[in-house]
Amino acid sequence: MELNNFQQIIDNTLNDIKNIEDLGQIASYIPELSHIDESKLGIHLTTVNNEHFACGDSNESFSIQSISKVISLVLAFELLGNKLWSRVGVEPSGSSFNSLVQLEYEKGIPRNPFLNAGAIVICDVLVSHLDDPKQHILDFVRRLSGNSTLTYNTSVAESERKTRYRNNSLANLMKEFGNIHNDIDTVLDVYFHLCSIEMTCKELAQTFLFLAMNGKNLLTNAVMQLCGFYDEAGEFSFKVGLPGKSGVGGGIIAIHPNQYSVAVWSPKLNKKGNSYKGIKILEVITTETGSSIF
Amino acid sequence: MELNNFQQIIDNTLNDIKNIEDLGQIASYIPELSHIDESKLGIHLTTVNNEHFACGDSNESFSIQSISKVISLVLAFELLGNKLWSRVGVEPSGSSFNSLVQLEYEKGIPRNPFLNAGAIVICDVLVSHLDDPKQHILDFVRRLSGNSTLTYNTSVAESERKTRYRNNSLANLMKEFGNIHNDIDTVLDVYFHLCSIEMTCKELAQTFLFLAMNGKNLLTNAVMQLCGFYDEAGEFSFKVGLPGKSGVGGGIIAIHPNQYSVAVWSPKLNKKGNSYKGIKILEVITTETGSSIF
Amino acid sequence: MELNNFQQIIDNTLNDIKNIEDLGQIASYIPELSHIDESKLGIHLTTVNNEHFACGDSNESFSIQSISKVISLVLAFELLGNKLWSRVGVEPSGSSFNSLVQLEYEKGIPRNPFLNAGAIVICDVLVSHLDDPKQHILDFVRRLSGNSTLTYNTSVAESERKTRYRNNSLANLMKEFGNIHNDIDTVLDVYFHLCSIEMTCKELAQTFLFLAMNGKNLLTNAVMQLCGFYDEAGEFSFKVGLPGKSGVGGGIIAIHPNQYSVAVWSPKLNKKGNSYKGIKILEVITTETGSSIF
Amino acid sequence: MELNNFQQIIDNTLNDIKNIEDLGQIASYIPELSHIDESKLGIHLTTVNNEHFACGDSNESFSIQSISKVISLVLAFELLGNKLWSRVGVEPSGSSFNSLVQLEYEKGIPRNPFLNAGAIVICDVLVSHLDDPKQHILDFVRRLSGNSTLTYNTSVAESERKTRYRNNSLANLMKEFGNIHNDIDTVLDVYFHLCSIEMTCKELAQTFLFLAMNGKNLLTNAVMQLCGFYDEAGEFSFKVGLPGKSGVGGGIIAIHPNQYSVAVWSPKLNKKGNSYKGIKILEVITTETGSSIF
Repeated sequence: MELNNFQQIIDNTLNDIKNIEDLGQIASYIPELSHIDESKLGIHLTTVNNEHFACGDSNESFSIQSISKVISLVLAFELLGNKLWSRVGVEPSGSSFNSLVQLEYEKGIPRNPFLNAGAIVICDVLVSHLDDPKQHILDFVRRLSGNSTLTYNTSVAESERKTRYRNNSLANLMKEFGNIHNDIDTVLDVYFHLCSIEMTCKELAQTFLFLAMNGKNLLTNAVMQLCGFYDEAGEFSFKVGLPGKSGVGGGIIAIHPNQYSVAVWSPKLNKKGNSYKGIKILEVITTETGSSIF
Repeated sequence: MELNNFQQIIDNTLNDIKNIEDLGQIASYIPELSHIDESKLGIHLTTVNNEHFACGDSNESFSIQSISKVISLVLAFELLGNKLWSRVGVEPSGSSFNSLVQLEYEKGIPRNPFLNAGAIVICDVLVSHLDDPKQHILDFVRRLSGNSTLTYNTSVAESERKTRYRNNSLANLMKEFGNIHNDIDTVLDVYFHLCSIEMTCKELAQTFLFLAMNGKNLLTNAVMQLCGFYDEAGEFSFKVGLPGKSGVGGGIIAIHPNQYSVAVWSPKLNKKGNSYKGIKILEVITTETGSSIF
Repeated sequence: MELNNFQQIIDNTLNDIKNIEDLGQIASYIPELSHIDESKLGIHLTTVNNEHFACGDSNESFSIQSISKVISLVLAFELLGNKLWSRVGVEPSGSSFNSLVQLEYEKGIPRNPFLNAGAIVICDVLVSHLDDPKQHILDFVRRLSGNSTLTYNTSVAESERKTRYRNNSLANLMKEFGNIHNDIDTVLDVYFHLCSIEMTCKELAQTFLFLAMNGKNLLTNAVMQLCGFYDEAGEFSFKVGLPGKSGVGGGIIAIHPNQYSVAVWSPKLNKKGNSYKGIKILEVITTETGSSIF
Repeated sequence: MELNNFQQIIDNTLNDIKNIEDLGQIASYIPELSHIDESKLGIHLTTVNNEHFACGDSNESFSIQSISKVISLVLAFELLGNKLWSRVGVEPSGSSFNSLVQLEYEKGIPRNPFLNAGAIVICDVLVSHLDDPKQHILDFVRRLSGNSTLTYNTSVAESERKTRYRNNSLANLMKEFGNIHNDIDTVLDVYFHLCSIEMTCKELAQTFLFLAMNGKNLLTNAVMQLCGFYDEAGEFSFKVGLPGKSGVGGGIIAIHPNQYSVAVWSPKLNKKGNSYKGIKILEVITTETGSSIF
């Protein structure tokens, strides 16, 4: 990989993908997200040597949504270590991200920390072990991103709270099985705020660079590789070949261990709920740079 | 990674693991496999530069079973290219390797080529496009392994045929959905032979070295990473951190792209159906050599 | 059927069944129910000609629990008529009474009005159409039973409310699918009170006599026959041969159209959640009197 | 019920229903059945006092298909008595008649004898205990119907054999679980012949009159009530109010215990696989005669 090519590859990729038809759809179930300009397109790549390559709308903030579930997993694993696995698995689910079926068959233990149910359990762990989990999450993200003004979008969080029925159903089912230890509303409040964090592509790439920096993050990278794209993890793995995580705000973060982190943003989602153009951009970038991990 | 350490790491690992209690069980449903000496333990690692590191029973042949499903996938993808994905998916299943439930919900399209149903569809593709699929498979394996006497164990194949009820159920269900194009008995005959191939650890490492050798095998490595260990793919990924594939004969092949292939063999299986000591050995090797891909 | 034999048959049956070993278990998930004297045994049979046959603890009040779901179904059907079937089905479920799996596959439409989910939808209908549904239910039951002091056991209702996680999960899932129109807590409050009604066997037989009295109750009797005993409806049908409904308080009501209603009470439940001795008593009674409907 | 009205009610019903639009579809998966004249409409009612009321195409033979599963259940229960219930349940399934999902979860024990899987197990019982099960079935049906020339339509049986993939899948899955004791092809041969019996409405009513004649058939009538109409058992129960069984040939038999048996035939099926006009006819008849059992 020649670094001096990176900027050109990114520029060309963005130009090429900008002009193809976007077959995706904006996420509509959160009203706050549906007002977004759907033509937004941004890329930011940061190397472990602190080089930066960016283009498009890479300095505009957007709702990172489920990408935050990587943050909460990292924090909960710091707190519990391998004891965490008695509360949540690390296996792909083989079903949609918010299904109750599997959760009932598996007696309230979510298959992985990136399913809604899994992230709610993770928030329950944070509530149990931290004085002020919402502030703790914010401090962590601000420190990593280098932006001390990053914050929650409380109207997005409130919007999710108002339409929380399925997440509430998941939380109650897990409470029934003994896998939620705290008050459900308190746990969901953390969960809804977690998903409402807003960042730019640049901040996103910077925040997650630590996962590329050293060998300690085998766990997180492996879970991203297997579970980061809902029911499209396999396809993302063989097309892009990097561990990553998407959010319904249209953002994706991907990691090349020991080399770089890259954030892309394009709001319209494919049928599996992942950014339609975002995946295409990453596919071209890893193909052009020959930098898949496989 | 210093190569001169490899031999010592492997030797130490084998000695350490040899003495721990083996909590696994021999696969009992194939009588031919149940007679194996359960204390067998072998390791063979081959680098892309043709260096070899081996210890233990690495030169004894054993039944590679489902590891062969990587071979059949490679052959079918050569024949059909991306058209293959209309017949079989590339997503982890989230359920056991021979479940009918998911297959019925998904209308006869198996989730991935390493599930029994998926490998049967792959064999159907081979029957459709090759004059003599069993000979073709054998030629391919012989060429890669460098051993022209490698062959099927027909009594193992016959043993599987006699207890074929679940595989027959899967094949008939897919035939009902139009996803098996040839005579079921012909397809299952290829499938049972495919799984009966016998090799040594050395031959196994040599056969699969091509997956480490160049960048063309993104697909195969990605599918192995996500689907190679049934319902333990996530755990294998974060403990070992390499794409791999196991078989109920107790063998495992793992690939470090651009670096090496490594085969291990220990017959007793954990509850998920993967070699108990085999996984432990690989975990120690990648930890000691710092050579996970994540 | 000779009526003058009824009393003797009932007496003999109670004596015989009293002495067999009770292999059931008291329902333990509602603390209020777990304090009951588990040797209680009562029978009361009322004919359409207003004859009464009783023995044992037939004048002691107990929690009728799910038997009340027949009451709420009758009231909701009076309000909506056949429009009710767009909100809830009339088919047996083939799975346990509080499963979420089927509810998710069938998009929030419960299979029948006696499943927890179905009864919660029925309560939602009552909340939508009645000024004071709890009072309305009570008025209805008091009028039918002839006992104007019948009431809710509010500590039982409160006990259910405190451990409401699964019911809350069901209600939230249905709300997500648009099948709960009112505030969830309001609906569940009606539901928990509905299940907390207390009656004697005599009052129970009297209350449900209207289902035997005339031909207008085809619907209710048919639904009881197919869905009244959770996953034991078939076995109850071929052993007892009457439409009926059980509750986890150990009560059962059964109807012989045009002839009689009969209530039995014995607190210990079999593995399917129905009164162990209650079913045996009814089996002997219908066999001895030759009065199955089949 | 005044008997002298029966003929007029039946005549009127047939005339009324003949003229409504038939929203059903001919069963197409068995080519032999798809050639039938879809306007056929026949009714035959026989009382326990040997009175006969008929109209329409009641003397034309048609394929009774799954109605035969009542015959095989009666024969198997004669052979095994209550031991039969270790092989097959008596509960409604809550899913479609040929689903594998439930069968896998319940480890090869079909929920009831009228599901395809259940009827295949019943045929396995007949193969185990009878010298010539196909002849035995024929003798039984000939004796009950009074027509010694009744026979199998071997081209229908052969047609089912050729498209047997789903039934073969079910049989193999049950064999895997140990619930098929004989050779699968032998068992399926009995099953396909069983379903190929042809009768007129008159013969059908006569054959099943024994279920109305005495009190010994509680079991069969109860199982018909709960499981006789696949996923429409509840709706049939509350609209018609009689135990019955349908077949994809468009026939339905229904029983009023102690009063009559009635057979109807109209080839087009509703979405649940039951005769569209057949159900309507029975609904009018039981409403007009006030003869539901509920």
